Amino acid sequence: METLFSNRAQHIVASEIREILKLTSKEGIISFAGGLPAPELFPYDALKVISVEVLETMGPKALQYSPTEGFQPLRDKIAERMTIRGMEATGEDILITCGSQQGLDFTGKIFLDPGDIVLCESPSYLGAINAFKSYECVFKEIQTDGEGMVMSDLEEKLKTLEHVKIIYVIPNFQNPTGRTWSLERRQELMRLANKYNKIVVEDNPYGELRYEGEAIPSVRSFDTEGRVVYLGTFSKTFCPGLRIGWVCASPVLLNKYILVKQSADLQTNSMSQRELALFLEKNDFDAHIQNIVAHYRKRRDTMVDAIEEYFPKHVAYEKPSGGLFLWVTVPEGIDTKVLLEKAVEQGVAYVPGASFYPNGLVKNTMRLNFSNMGEEKIVEGIRILGKLLEA
Amino acid sequence: METLFSNRAQHIVASEIREILKLTSKEGIISFAGGLPAPELFPYDALKVISVEVLETMGPKALQYSPTEGFQPLRDKIAERMTIRGMEATGEDILITCGSQQGLDFTGKIFLDPGDIVLCESPSYLGAINAFKSYECVFKEIQTDGEGMVMSDLEEKLKTLEHVKIIYVIPNFQNPTGRTWSLERRQELMRLANKYNKIVVEDNPYGELRYEGEAIPSVRSFDTEGRVVYLGTFSKTFCPGLRIGWVCASPVLLNKYILVKQSADLQTNSMSQRELALFLEKNDFDAHIQNIVAHYRKRRDTMVDAIEEYFPKHVAYEKPSGGLFLWVTVPEGIDTKVLLEKAVEQGVAYVPGASFYPNGLVKNTMRLNFSNMGEEKIVEGIRILGKLLEA
Repeated sequence: METLFSNRAQHIVASEIREILKLTSKEGIISFAGGLPAPELFPYDALKVISVEVLETMGPKALQYSPTEGFQPLRDKIAERMTIRGMEATGEDILITCGSQQGLDFTGKIFLDPGDIVLCESPSYLGAINAFKSYECVFKEIQTDGEGMVMSDLEEKLKTLEHVKIIYVIPNFQNPTGRTWSLERRQELMRLANKYNKIVVEDNPYGELRYEGEAIPSVRSFDTEGRVVYLGTFSKTFCPGLRIGWVCASPVLLNKYILVKQSADLQTNSMSQRELALFLEKNDFDAHIQNIVAHYRKRRDTMVDAIEEYFPKHVAYEKPSGGLFLWVTVPEGIDTKVLLEKAVEQGVAYVPGASFYPNGLVKNTMRLNFSNMGEEKIVEGIRILGKLLEA
Repeated sequence: METLFSNRAQHIVASEIREILKLTSKEGIISFAGGLPAPELFPYDALKVISVEVLETMGPKALQYSPTEGFQPLRDKIAERMTIRGMEATGEDILITCGSQQGLDFTGKIFLDPGDIVLCESPSYLGAINAFKSYECVFKEIQTDGEGMVMSDLEEKLKTLEHVKIIYVIPNFQNPTGRTWSLERRQELMRLANKYNKIVVEDNPYGELRYEGEAIPSVRSFDTEGRVVYLGTFSKTFCPGLRIGWVCASPVLLNKYILVKQSADLQTNSMSQRELALFLEKNDFDAHIQNIVAHYRKRRDTMVDAIEEYFPKHVAYEKPSGGLFLWVTVPEGIDTKVLLEKAVEQGVAYVPGASFYPNGLVKNTMRLNFSNMGEEKIVEGIRILGKLLEA
């Protein structure tokens, strides 16, 4: 039967993170793998009331087919929140998707022919790599430092490579490195995208989870030509299980996303969209996010303190000012994939950094998630990892 | 910006049905367009109790990321129901999708390279046509009569055409014609798929909505080589707003679907899957379906009686023994797309049949949906249509 698969299907392979997640879902393991938000911060009580209210007041529409674009009050609310953050938008600019992962998949479908090139940060988000790869593209990694992509490397690639379609970036608290782009790099990225006529995909799942400092304007806020596709999600600020994200793009682009959504799955869950809209209407969502921020900041600090105490000095790490992840670089001789097996034996999991380089063979990095474990477990897990790294 | 679109994106165009649905959503219109189930039959009260119970007993898991394959008890329950219907399956053979539309999209992604051929009934389901078309395939329509595809035409095409990958069929109460395949044609389809090494996609959204006669075994029940991809959905038997469907396929195929799901949107809504599983556990689902069947049977009979009374004799129709649709053929001189404008002016909508022929220019057919309107409105709408057809 395999002979009947499309060429594309050959490029669709198992995601290491999901496989690892399976491995580490056993009871008792301290998992710094995955990118799971803390379930104890999900709004259970509010949702209990809201789900009944949605059925009572909007029942027929909550359970029926509904427009592909999404539930209008939710689209409007998202646009309003974006506008407050310097990204002017109306509800008409928003398409509700099943998480921002679906926005990534649609982006691949809309822009990538076989052999087309995606420019991405090195390293970059594994889910995006897999989504784009399923459309038979090629990745060129752009050198990245503490301020974002290195612009000279980006321009070099834009100048010399044919068939570049997309520049994919996560400017805030990047997955996996936790790094945040400087204002200047964001502006320069936009200038180069205009100059070379490329699409910028700005993926911003973590932007609202800032633990210190001032928010930096989004790349989209500098977009004067409608070439930024902005992806947002409620997975980290509300909950991931309801699968609600969005695409914000200029009309000519968004229209294509809406058509793709229509043939992909018709629409996002009618009931969950209404529940979220009602939650946003009835609650102080910013206060809700600030509560999450307070918890995660503490966990990040706990992890940083534990690393300072337990990791050997030849191990480097980057302290993120937001998001869910902390990036660790170990000496070049150590392969973190090999180390993972020992770590799991001792009850600790993380994601080896190699997964995040679409082409590369960087073997001495690891991504640590700090949002999903309580503080005691964070300390214990880092202590165990530290011992392994000493050896 | 359009110059950056993929070739594929050029094939992704607006679905006529969705556009018409927008047109006909105004208050007061009698709509035989769309394929909407009757919202008055959705299980509101049960869902109110269940949504609270899911949050109370499974809250953290209902709102968190969960396995791509789907919620295991739901997978098991679906497999059990399929097994009872002569399609032996276990939970491991099931992938939960966002409606069966997503199963169609994944099918295109997994099997279709540009130029590959899909064989389908003539006419066929518009949503499938659009989903497959977005992967740049070509359609060859197979002649179809009251018993299903005409097997001599199918074999002729299988013999002479290169690059056929998929045979797409809706054997029960087909959309748009309402026709049901005979047992013999199902068996013969399977024999030909084996002989010519093709994938059969058996789409069965309406199978449980049978208004008379005995159920006929599915094509999958004759599959000895694991080449049938079976698509199911709860949209017509529970509600469409929660977007829950499934793919059932042999392990080598299903594994690919799971990987595609992972890169497409990670997983289906965790909460809705649990709500449905609990509904299936706590209620007599077959009795629930029989209640729907009783209502829809009455509506079908009402429409048939009204057609007999009000349609001129030169208009032919086919009485379906299940499903949601009734198929009408008017004299060749009449273009039902042109007629639609007049019909909408007078407050009645339907879908012109032309939309359902991927290549064809058959202009004198229409699809009438009878599930979404009460009996008085059905009579009134048919009376108005009848007058227009007299003219």
